[in-house]
Amino acid sequence: MTEPAFAGDFPDAEFTVRLERAQRSMAAEKLDALLITTEAELRYFSGFRTLFWQSPTRPWFLIVPAAGKPIAVVPEIGAALMRATWIDDVRTWAAPHASDDGVSLLTAAMAGYARVGMSMGRASALRMPLTDFQRVRDALPGTQWSDASVLLRNLRMVKSEAEIDKIRAICAIGSAAFERGTELFHEGQPLDEVFRAFKIELLRQGAEDVPYLVGGAGSGGYADVISPPSARPLQRGDVLMLDTGATRHGYFCDFDRNFAIGPPSEAATTANDVLWRATEAGLAVARPGATCADVYRAMANVIGQGDGDVGRLGHALGSELTEEPSLISWDQTVLQAGMVMTLEPSMVVAGDAIMVHEENIVVRDGAPELLTKRAAPELVAI
Amino acid sequence: MTEPAFAGDFPDAEFTVRLERAQRSMAAEKLDALLITTEAELRYFSGFRTLFWQSPTRPWFLIVPAAGKPIAVVPEIGAALMRATWIDDVRTWAAPHASDDGVSLLTAAMAGYARVGMSMGRASALRMPLTDFQRVRDALPGTQWSDASVLLRNLRMVKSEAEIDKIRAICAIGSAAFERGTELFHEGQPLDEVFRAFKIELLRQGAEDVPYLVGGAGSGGYADVISPPSARPLQRGDVLMLDTGATRHGYFCDFDRNFAIGPPSEAATTANDVLWRATEAGLAVARPGATCADVYRAMANVIGQGDGDVGRLGHALGSELTEEPSLISWDQTVLQAGMVMTLEPSMVVAGDAIMVHEENIVVRDGAPELLTKRAAPELVAI
Repeated sequence: MTEPAFAGDFPDAEFTVRLERAQRSMAAEKLDALLITTEAELRYFSGFRTLFWQSPTRPWFLIVPAAGKPIAVVPEIGAALMRATWIDDVRTWAAPHASDDGVSLLTAAMAGYARVGMSMGRASALRMPLTDFQRVRDALPGTQWSDASVLLRNLRMVKSEAEIDKIRAICAIGSAAFERGTELFHEGQPLDEVFRAFKIELLRQGAEDVPYLVGGAGSGGYADVISPPSARPLQRGDVLMLDTGATRHGYFCDFDRNFAIGPPSEAATTANDVLWRATEAGLAVARPGATCADVYRAMANVIGQGDGDVGRLGHALGSELTEEPSLISWDQTVLQAGMVMTLEPSMVVAGDAIMVHEENIVVRDGAPELLTKRAAPELVAI
Repeated sequence: MTEPAFAGDFPDAEFTVRLERAQRSMAAEKLDALLITTEAELRYFSGFRTLFWQSPTRPWFLIVPAAGKPIAVVPEIGAALMRATWIDDVRTWAAPHASDDGVSLLTAAMAGYARVGMSMGRASALRMPLTDFQRVRDALPGTQWSDASVLLRNLRMVKSEAEIDKIRAICAIGSAAFERGTELFHEGQPLDEVFRAFKIELLRQGAEDVPYLVGGAGSGGYADVISPPSARPLQRGDVLMLDTGATRHGYFCDFDRNFAIGPPSEAATTANDVLWRATEAGLAVARPGATCADVYRAMANVIGQGDGDVGRLGHALGSELTEEPSLISWDQTVLQAGMVMTLEPSMVVAGDAIMVHEENIVVRDGAPELLTKRAAPELVAI
């Protein structure tokens, strides 16, 4: 009678290809299975998308075997949605459970795998209780557990054209919303109202959600780029920056734009020019075969003052706001066609005031494809 | 020159009281420190609030010692915001780091604690790489690690009046947005447009974010309550349900409302009446001294068919969409004044169609305080 509300973000073929790539890598590393507990990785292999991850109550598990389709071990509340994906084998329990929140079901599903990979390294988390993870390990004494972070990163960092289409769409929505900035924002407007107006505009333009909107405004620059907005009104001489991670079909854009409230200071004008040229330098170097460190250095050389507070000058982008790898001095990851990256140069303007630029690109054979509408070379004044 | 954008959600006294309560519990359990890695717990003790948790790149650490103020060990990008909180001791590193993402800094800060508590139990996660957690444990061979999930749950589940004020405010915003439902939603409107219109309305009414909006619409009920919306237009005979977790100052509401598109079916009318009365039964029992299981049973007895797919009939609510404890048959947690809970009865209408009601309350001496504007007894028709 009722029908599943959600028809899925991709055709099954997308997941078949992802699984084949994973199983080739697993064979090379002699892994019998991957155990997945986190949202982005679970969605990558299953297509299971829900905001229900906001609730920390229930763990969710997906097993990717060396051969055959993934096996979902999930709370009953997610059964209908999981069965609407391409996954056939969906095992459920009534969660939350008094004493066994999926542990015995997961353990039974994993018996027989000698070598299991999990994300245990950079940028990873364990989204299940540590005590339950230990119970699973104790129940499978013959299993060898190894870090599959790099394997999973290498799979996810090269996007399919279907994924790129989705990121392109949300970047276009973000670009269209920023284009309306000069109408939406004005001197005297409290910063929290600026944020609210921009979120509404992003939704109007077609974003499904705005999980990330940060920014700042201050005289000639802003102090940090991760704070919630205050109610301080925009003032003449401010530089306003908004950095948005809006989503569509579960894929993010992640870029910012700067606006000068009234005529900008000379320092802000200069910094804006340096950052615009740093981005150009990044665009000129971001080619298959170049390393992340190469792109970092190209931008850092234009900036000439290190990387400020941000610690890196860009990162991969996809179903998470920030993905691996990073554009940073020590990251020797080689760029490949199909990688979606942010170029995010930042610099100190004066004192503790900084400025940040950001664009989103796809690495292509030849010049990268810009997914964002390139920022104007001059600071846009309001 | 620049000022921190964010002045904080609470006066310092709020955090002093939280720390004192924690340290009393820690003394009783002979813990020398708590190690915190997750957003809600870190914010509970520090006031550090940012959407930057969307980025999985960087781990964040807070140490709560048995005496003295918490110590923050955080990436440099968060230093300005952390220093704007009541925390004095803020230790930072340039993250992401090639080889040591806070491990040696955290280890040094934790040397000397013999017994360390962490959330390792129900509804917890480890928000740092497992390999780095193992490195910390290896570097502190004399440290005994124990599960502090229940200790932390017991602290967080009793809200201060300042916290209740924030939840009341976002519940009022949610109630005002739902009041406009009959104007916002109409037959023929695609479900994803229903979601978009409602998110915009929540923001207009004063929500800061809408991290959670799920729902469904189907003939006489809906199939599940965690799916993203499809583009299927609302049809006569549908029951539309929207369940929102909007936020203000980092605190959630979590409640739903049902709307009939055209005259409702007899089965939907009956189910709506049962669920409304089940909520009344929960309101009548939710008193200090009653257990979560008591409230569950009061509602389940009215429903008369178990708990459907949802697995519990309510839960605690606060800085997370769902917090511990749960209103479920086996949860013997005793209610205390100041606990903020959802009452969330659900039932099967017919076939695989279900309906869910939800209200948010504060347990008070005497009758609970309703934070949401009580749903009308009759299904609202559009």
